[in-house]
Amino acid sequence: MKSAVSSLVRSNNSLISRTLLYHSSKPISQSPFFLSNIPKNLFNQRYQKLQFSPNSTSIMASLSKSEQAREPPALPLPSPPLTKFKIGLCQLSVTPDKERNIKHARKAIEEAAQKGAQLVLLPEIWNSPYSNDSFPVYAEDINAGGDASPSTAMLSEVASRLKITIVGGSIPERCGDKLYNTCCVFGTDGKLKAKHRKIHLFDIDIPGKITFMESKTLTAGETPTVVDTDVGRIGIGICYDIRFTELAMIYAARGAHLICYPGAFNMTTGPLHWELSQRARAMDNQLYVATCSPARDPGAGYVAWGHSTLVGPFGEVLASTEHEEDIIIAEIDYSILEQRRVSLPFTKQRRGDLYKLVDIQRLNSH
Amino acid sequence: MKSAVSSLVRSNNSLISRTLLYHSSKPISQSPFFLSNIPKNLFNQRYQKLQFSPNSTSIMASLSKSEQAREPPALPLPSPPLTKFKIGLCQLSVTPDKERNIKHARKAIEEAAQKGAQLVLLPEIWNSPYSNDSFPVYAEDINAGGDASPSTAMLSEVASRLKITIVGGSIPERCGDKLYNTCCVFGTDGKLKAKHRKIHLFDIDIPGKITFMESKTLTAGETPTVVDTDVGRIGIGICYDIRFTELAMIYAARGAHLICYPGAFNMTTGPLHWELSQRARAMDNQLYVATCSPARDPGAGYVAWGHSTLVGPFGEVLASTEHEEDIIIAEIDYSILEQRRVSLPFTKQRRGDLYKLVDIQRLNSH
Repeated sequence: MKSAVSSLVRSNNSLISRTLLYHSSKPISQSPFFLSNIPKNLFNQRYQKLQFSPNSTSIMASLSKSEQAREPPALPLPSPPLTKFKIGLCQLSVTPDKERNIKHARKAIEEAAQKGAQLVLLPEIWNSPYSNDSFPVYAEDINAGGDASPSTAMLSEVASRLKITIVGGSIPERCGDKLYNTCCVFGTDGKLKAKHRKIHLFDIDIPGKITFMESKTLTAGETPTVVDTDVGRIGIGICYDIRFTELAMIYAARGAHLICYPGAFNMTTGPLHWELSQRARAMDNQLYVATCSPARDPGAGYVAWGHSTLVGPFGEVLASTEHEEDIIIAEIDYSILEQRRVSLPFTKQRRGDLYKLVDIQRLNSH
Repeated sequence: MKSAVSSLVRSNNSLISRTLLYHSSKPISQSPFFLSNIPKNLFNQRYQKLQFSPNSTSIMASLSKSEQAREPPALPLPSPPLTKFKIGLCQLSVTPDKERNIKHARKAIEEAAQKGAQLVLLPEIWNSPYSNDSFPVYAEDINAGGDASPSTAMLSEVASRLKITIVGGSIPERCGDKLYNTCCVFGTDGKLKAKHRKIHLFDIDIPGKITFMESKTLTAGETPTVVDTDVGRIGIGICYDIRFTELAMIYAARGAHLICYPGAFNMTTGPLHWELSQRARAMDNQLYVATCSPARDPGAGYVAWGHSTLVGPFGEVLASTEHEEDIIIAEIDYSILEQRRVSLPFTKQRRGDLYKLVDIQRLNSH
């Protein structure tokens, strides 16, 4: 019994199990692996054996405790398809001219790719002014595609032509009679790999400073989004989604290497919380965090903070910029993730006997 | 049905229910209120009605969603017994001379109280050098008290004489054949109100930088600790406990106004993560965070970072210091907590349909 338990424990860290659990062709939530019996059986077996083993040593008990802190238990960090690559963060100026915004974004993506970026991240709402009046006017039917969605058609075309992955910031999406704030992820083949609809709408009221109610026009999305790409497993959040640490924790437990947050913090919450939120999510979850904001337009109705940033798994700012239009090119090195997690082994130290974070979608898919 | 539901929802925010749920005489985990039927019935009733009401409107559904993000549902913020007061953070120098350390701490507490502090916070392991060799030698039997625990006897005496609340940093505690890293909270009557044993032991290994394994000598505590005092509801964590955001989230859901973390980060993790961790816990949970470190002794085996700090509910540093011995006196204003939570209503915006944090002790006590 004891040796069977030990071998199951060891398999947690083996390259084989990590490779088995990595699948690069589909969003994880749609992946047959994700919903299939393989992770379920693998994890349930280990979970139960560790929990109920009569011979469990204190080390095993401690593993068991920490695994219980996530329900379902956290997936091991998958082996990424590549270790080092460049990310491009395009902090774009945005105007009321949608056609110009699309052309302008295309040019920026091309420039980032030309400078070596294999992953390009765009800002939140980059094809439209950020306002409740504009969202319905600029919204596109992403599911219909083609002429009904010129913004995402452009992203698809550029991704396949340049063979890069694009986390396409966000645009207002129309679907039936609803509007969403939606991020599309395109793979190197130009195919839409995932679509994240902002799940925490930006409704805040700091009197005399900033009041905005996205829920006046927008509907919140219904699922977290993690997607396997040629540049690793990426969790997606849009702006206010970063406020909710649970989402980043779920993404880490799903094995994300990187979380991308297109976002447009403002002149009040920007200086207060933009960098702090990014660094906190990266440090606590021991993964990379990349953010991309529109450039600041002091004449706009909503003035963005800018300061697009890449943060490493120690919560360290690796690259950032001010508020003007800019393209940041920075290197991501996934080999550091494993190192950081060995140095500070949070995932093995959590107290699953005292607290537990439940990922409801993943739990229900088991 | 609909109006019954509405009135239950309204009662969530009423002063009456907040007052009812506040109880200043005992640690919340030992309070008859905490374990009694009153919160259980109140919360379970509301929870179930909201969840299963056939007439629920979208607003109610949204309340229901956000309440489900904590299990049991988060307690409303209690009305504190006072709104504004001064906290004193005593960043003490620590030597191998225990008797001197106790006298020295007494003097610092007296000075803080003389400057107006109604709550005094001490550093982690303030009566002993921080080392696995020292812990067994300096450990005290806190439960036996008196001569068996001169450090806590002093805290009790000073607290009652000066009529202040003391969150007594931590000392090595001996209990039977086990050692703990333990924080004692004394009320203005000098009584021990709560005892927190560090629940996440500091076992880290950053090669060439810092390696420490508390688990070589110490045993981890078994419960989170929230205590009602004359200066508000306080959650306690010790140093490495701050790494685990779940603990702070549990404390916020239990209605804490303030989390105190005695801590001794080091010269590697200090500059990287000490301030970032504090600011993140305060911002994400919209409460005050106070930390207190030993002063730095460059000749010690373990060199502390210092930088004791008070952080407000926007994650803003309100007061801090460098690494030398110092006493910080700073004002806490609990009225800001409600303001911040109205401006950024995270607690009403969480997606309990997507994630849920379970507080296992509180759940089991229901």
